[in-house]
Amino acid sequence: MSATNMPDFELHPQLAADTLPVCSLPLCEVLLLNDANYPWLVLVPARANLRDFHDLSSDDMVTAGREISRASEALVGLLAPDKINVAALGNMVPQLHIHVIARFTDDAAWPSPIWGVVPAQEYESSALDTWLADLRRAFG
Amino acid sequence: MSATNMPDFELHPQLAADTLPVCSLPLCEVLLLNDANYPWLVLVPARANLRDFHDLSSDDMVTAGREISRASEALVGLLAPDKINVAALGNMVPQLHIHVIARFTDDAAWPSPIWGVVPAQEYESSALDTWLADLRRAFG
Repeated sequence: MSATNMPDFELHPQLAADTLPVCSLPLCEVLLLNDANYPWLVLVPARANLRDFHDLSSDDMVTAGREISRASEALVGLLAPDKINVAALGNMVPQLHIHVIARFTDDAAWPSPIWGVVPAQEYESSALDTWLADLRRAFG
Repeated sequence: MSATNMPDFELHPQLAADTLPVCSLPLCEVLLLNDANYPWLVLVPARANLRDFHDLSSDDMVTAGREISRASEALVGLLAPDKINVAALGNMVPQLHIHVIARFTDDAAWPSPIWGVVPAQEYESSALDTWLADLRRAFG
């Protein structure tokens, strides 16, 4: 069973609005934030009613760790970034979601965390198509 | 074996300077950030040469998830915060460290992430002693 057909899970509308779907892993929906400033994935465990990272069951937490690694390694393999940032914040959107972001020492926010530094800049359509295809290939 | 006696692990001097030791878990050193603005723990896996979350071995990642949960639940049990933020950023201090922060809707940065919003404010010595004792009790 993949993340898309979990019962009772619905992606939060704000996450749906801000992202493009990349793929479904055993636990998480993998989404691409539509912000060309940073290569920025969001992993959403497809379980109803999760808010905090520690709300995950023990088994799901193991899977989440594995999928965070897969997402990190996909970004590393494609882009060779200087750093990966991982975060579950959720102060604005209460549904548990995990940011996995490739950081570069010359990106718009370095060395600060990315939130709130520069306004989101949507991808151009052709760049977006290429990037999504690369990401899907990297996730296998 | 607890985190303190892992071979070849040395806490990064910047983390040592900014924090107080709370306790040692099987994998992580648990540290309290000396910033009274936020109840803010830092978990440092006591392994040499880790930078990113995905550098953890599979087994250590499982333990890290468990210890992040323990830290989150300690903060929830003591403070009943509105949200827990979890993050492995490490853009400034390269040694892998995981922030576990209790957030309140009336804290200095809400709903933004905490980094860079207000200057750190050191705890007063008596408040710090009480808080460390409470935390150590909560970790058992």
